Parts: sequence; C-alpha cells; structure tokens
Amino acid sequence: MSTNTLTGFTCLAPIAARDTVLLGHGSGGRLSGELVRDVFLPAFGSPELERLNDQAVVTVGGARIAMTTDSFVIRPLFFPGGDIGSLAVYGTVNDLAVGGAQPLFLSAAFILEEGFPMSQLRRVAASLQRAAQACGVQVVTADTKVVERGKGDGLFINTTGIGLAPSARELSADRARPGDRILLNGSIGEHGIAILAQREGLEFESAIESDCAPLHTLCAQVLEAADGIRCMRDLTRGGLSSALNEIAAQSRAGIALDESRIPVREEVRGACEMLGLDPLYVANEGKMIAIVAPEAAVSALAAMRNHPLGRGAEIIGTVTEAHAGLVTMKTALGTARIVDMLAGDQLPRIC
Amino acid sequence: MSTNTLTGFTCLAPIAARDTVLLGHGSGGRLSGELVRDVFLPAFGSPELERLNDQAVVTVGGARIAMTTDSFVIRPLFFPGGDIGSLAVYGTVNDLAVGGAQPLFLSAAFILEEGFPMSQLRRVAASLQRAAQACGVQVVTADTKVVERGKGDGLFINTTGIGLAPSARELSADRARPGDRILLNGSIGEHGIAILAQREGLEFESAIESDCAPLHTLCAQVLEAADGIRCMRDLTRGGLSSALNEIAAQSRAGIALDESRIPVREEVRGACEMLGLDPLYVANEGKMIAIVAPEAAVSALAAMRNHPLGRGAEIIGTVTEAHAGLVTMKTALGTARIVDMLAGDQLPRIC
Repeated sequence: MSTNTLTGFTCLAPIAARDTVLLGHGSGGRLSGELVRDVFLPAFGSPELERLNDQAVVTVGGARIAMTTDSFVIRPLFFPGGDIGSLAVYGTVNDLAVGGAQPLFLSAAFILEEGFPMSQLRRVAASLQRAAQACGVQVVTADTKVVERGKGDGLFINTTGIGLAPSARELSADRARPGDRILLNGSIGEHGIAILAQREGLEFESAIESDCAPLHTLCAQVLEAADGIRCMRDLTRGGLSSALNEIAAQSRAGIALDESRIPVREEVRGACEMLGLDPLYVANEGKMIAIVAPEAAVSALAAMRNHPLGRGAEIIGTVTEAHAGLVTMKTALGTARIVDMLAGDQLPRIC
Repeated sequence: MSTNTLTGFTCLAPIAARDTVLLGHGSGGRLSGELVRDVFLPAFGSPELERLNDQAVVTVGGARIAMTTDSFVIRPLFFPGGDIGSLAVYGTVNDLAVGGAQPLFLSAAFILEEGFPMSQLRRVAASLQRAAQACGVQVVTADTKVVERGKGDGLFINTTGIGLAPSARELSADRARPGDRILLNGSIGEHGIAILAQREGLEFESAIESDCAPLHTLCAQVLEAADGIRCMRDLTRGGLSSALNEIAAQSRAGIALDESRIPVREEVRGACEMLGLDPLYVANEGKMIAIVAPEAAVSALAAMRNHPLGRGAEIIGTVTEAHAGLVTMKTALGTARIVDMLAGDQLPRIC
C-alpha cells in the first residue's frame, strides 16, 4: 500500500497486485487510465479511441456520427435526485453533448440478476424513458440478459448513444492552449456526497441531492455563444481533478486553478471535511467544464450563466505553458498544491 | 410449475412468481418476449422497438444508420470455438448484417468483477480485436466499470454496433407472406451443445465446437443474389424455434417446417438425445434463416451454398396462410407437431 501524500488518498494498488482487476480500475482516475493504456489501447489501437475523448466521431453514409457508450453499475439504484434509469440517459447524453453533438438515439441493455423485483425494473424503465423524452432522445434498440442470483447485483444498464456531430467544430481534450480559460458550470461534489450519504445512512442538516442532469442544451448554448471553445468535459467519476488531468496530459499543457473560484456548496464542503474527502475528486453528474480561448471566455461565461444549469458558473483557472501535464492550484490559504489524478478508489460504483 | 407437453420443457414461471426476474427472462424465449411486451415496450414505446427486429434503423444527418446492442454474459468465458470477446463482436455484427446493413463501428463496454485476472482480460481484448478486424469493423469507443467481488461474474461485455443501412431494401420480421420459403444456412445446435459440454465436463466422441462466426458477408451475398428476401434472422438464444415463432407472430402467418430438411450434426443429435434437449431450441452463433419469396428461393439458396458458412444450407419450410402465428413441423416420423417458443430456460447464459 502506498499513500499519495499530495491528495491524502491511499492507493490500494501496489504494482505487483495489478495482475488482477481492482475496484480502483473503475474509479475514473489513475488506475482506470492505466487499464486503458495497458490493455485496451494496445488491443484496439483505433485513432478514435486514442484521443481519449468521451465520444468518438465517425462517418457513416456521408454523415458525421458521434458515438459513446457507458455502463451504469451505481449502488443504490435509487438515490436523492435520481436513479440508475435517469442517470443512464443523462450520462450518455452528456458524453455526446460535451463533444458538441446533438444526442438523438440510444440503445439500452439491461443485465438483471435473477430475483430482481419486477416493480423496480418498471420504475427504472419509466424513469429512463422520462429522462430520454426530456432530452429529446429515443430508445430504439434494447437487450436483456439475466444472470443467476449472486452473479450480478440487481441491475446493470448499458446505454450507447449516437448523435449528429458538428460538421466543422472540433472539440478535443488535446486542444487546450496556454492562456485558455477554464469554465465550470456550478458547484461540485453533490452527486458523490448524495450517494455516499444514502449508502452509509448519513444525515446532513439539509439534504444533499445528486446534481444528475442533462447538459445538452447548456453545451449547445455555450457553443453557440462563443467561437473559441477548445474542449468540454462532463465531470463524472474521478471528479474535476481527473477531467482536468486528462486534458493537461492530452494537451501537454499546465492547468492552474484558483481554489477560491471553485464553487462548493456549504453542506458538501462540510460532508467532505467530515468524511475526509476532497471535493475535487468527488463525482458529479450535471457538471461540466469548458476550455475556452481567452477572447471568448467572457461570452462563454455569460452564455453558461444564462442557462438554468449554469447559473453558478465560474472561471476557475487558466491553461499555462508552465508545468505541462500537471494541474496545480492556488489554495484558499494562498499556498500552491498539485492536484493529482485520483490514485486509488474513493467511492466505488458511483455511476 | 407447468410443463409444456409439446416440447417437454418445464416452465419455471408460474404467473404469480413473475413479480421477480427469473433466469428464463433471459432465455430469448417466451419469458423474454413477455418481459419486452410487459415492461420495455410500454415504457419506451418507440415504433422502431415495436417492430422487434434485431436492429433499429434511424436517420442521422441524412444517412440511414442501423443500430443494435447486446450484452454478453456467457459462462464459461472461453469455450471450444470461441470466447466472450469474439462472440461479442460476431453477435452484434450478425444483428446488423441480418438487417441488410454494413457493420462499421462498435462500442465495447466492460463490467469487470474485482479480482478478475488481467491476463484473461488481455486475452479477451485481443480476441475481440481480432474478430473486429476479421469483420472489418472498428472499436471506436469503450467503457470500463468494476464491481466488488461477488457482485458480478468475472466479465460482462456490451457491444453496440452501428452500420450503414440499405437505402431501399426493407427487411423485417413482419414481412413473411404465404408461399415464402425458409432457408437455413447450416446445421443447428452446435454453440449450445459446445457450451453445455464445457460447462458440465461432458466428453463426446468427436469434440463439438461452437459455430460462432460472422455472417455479414453471407448475408450480403444472399441479398445480392436475390430480390425477394423478406427477412433474415440470426439464430442465437432460443434457437431456431424462437426466431421462427417471432416471425410467425409478427407476420401473422403460419410456418410449416419439414424436420427431414433441418440439418443437425450426428454428434449434436446424439448429445441432445442424451441430455433431453431439442436441437430446435438450442442456441447457435453462426446460423441464420432467410425468409424468401418463392421465385427467389432457388437463387438465394445457391448464393448461400456458395459461401463457406452456407455450404450446408437447406430450404427447411414454407410460410403458410393456415395456422397464422404458429410454427408447425412435419416430423421425421411423418406426424405433425407444434414447435412452440422456448417456454422456460434451457441453458442460462449461453451468450
């Protein structure tokens, strides 16, 4: 066992133990990245995969199609602010939206555990459909498999989404340039803390709900308002830190954050302190960042704030030439720290 | 418990018990159909889904896109003739191909159980990639989730495929018309028996391998050779009987089979007799049927037989006006029987 002294998280994965899959391989952090680099990229080696974006863009019959896939294994299935059904729609819609695509069609594949209550399945299916309608997407193809009792965990859902990719605009994690501004649409950490509270039976003074929401109209609004959008990312497992670290690495640029500009709700900050968590690493399901050319930052911020899901938007940092590949942060105390990728696994099965 | 006297299979699902998910809901037979009709269609209610084809066809940016999804939960992961990686490609490629589409791009989503050997994951990824290359499709987007030990079963894979749908030709399960011929590309039951033998440690005189294979070039060849193709289906879980029952129901027509024309390899027939299974219900992964207008049957059969995966092709029956919605069969003994849908679950987790 090793401890990452910068973030305070314990890394559960000594190199020698990595001949088996660890929970942390699903965290969206460093271990997930290793798994992609060591196993999947060498095997699949597609240029689309190697760009490590949330969605691929391919050409079919002359049309530019965006495509993305996500499995949802969240526990519990129902949580304050959402459930696995709505999450399975928003997660995939958001992965398309941050690439600038218009989400259109979804597949939905269910892996059920024998004995799973039919009433819960109906409830999830209804929620999934409501979410799809709210996003203007249609479930057009589906699949169901059943595994024996004890070989699954109630319900896993995979959704794969396709949409119309923009013809010209190219958003990609490798396009951040020194001077670009980093915009965030609101306060972080609510999804992770809501799940954790539900799971552990914690009660806070005011209930914390997941921020689970579809970001497609917000993304479209930002893209329409400003020309210099380099890249957008929704912040899910691995939190703000992992998304920024991936962009810093892919763009070979530094990212300098200003902690005082990063919105965190008081209840979330309190819960994080109590639980020893850093909100930068906590999962979100309705938050996104946009990397924006300096001259476009003001109009992009205005567009964000003009959307119900972007009212709390802030410019939280800048892309730098210095410290290429690293994310650094000026803390509220005025000191500087490195914001590393999530090393181990903070909260398994958060999405 | 009720017994289906026509097929000899026991139905494990008394109506009252159907408030929970049963293994049979994943069988591809009657219970799977109930789940789709009772839960998913009412929830999602899309016209594309309601046609109950293996793939949806949607329009994106002016292009006709075919889309299909499948999760693979097969046990064991490695079996004679294939593994979960190759199966995950062929299964999805075949679902596109039988709709007349050209398979192009795949997503691949992995749900791993904590502790799963990394060496097996590499082996599966390599096999998946080899299969994709053999089919001329590219894995362009991927996802990995990890669940705790005891909450999964090693590895589940979802693949979703998109392809170019034919512009004019309309293949659909509701298009069978009286007089149409039913073509089958070869001997049935090999996948199911190979898996069962491996699982139960059975040994036969000559080893039975899964017939797991990509059918896209065979489908294309048949479509090119003949104009009157109404519908094609690959035969997976639920076997030949379920595919034909679905077509009979969707087309409101009868289907009359001639048992003597249905190829079954001697070893498979022997294993089925020993195990009390009916080859009509046993899963395949490289077999397909085509429903063909009478005047096109001879050229379609010739085209099938001209392909390495169709050498053993036969015309196994006819679509009838009588017995609409039912599949009947003239047995080798000259008697007639109804070939019902798979009622319970013959072999869970066959794909």
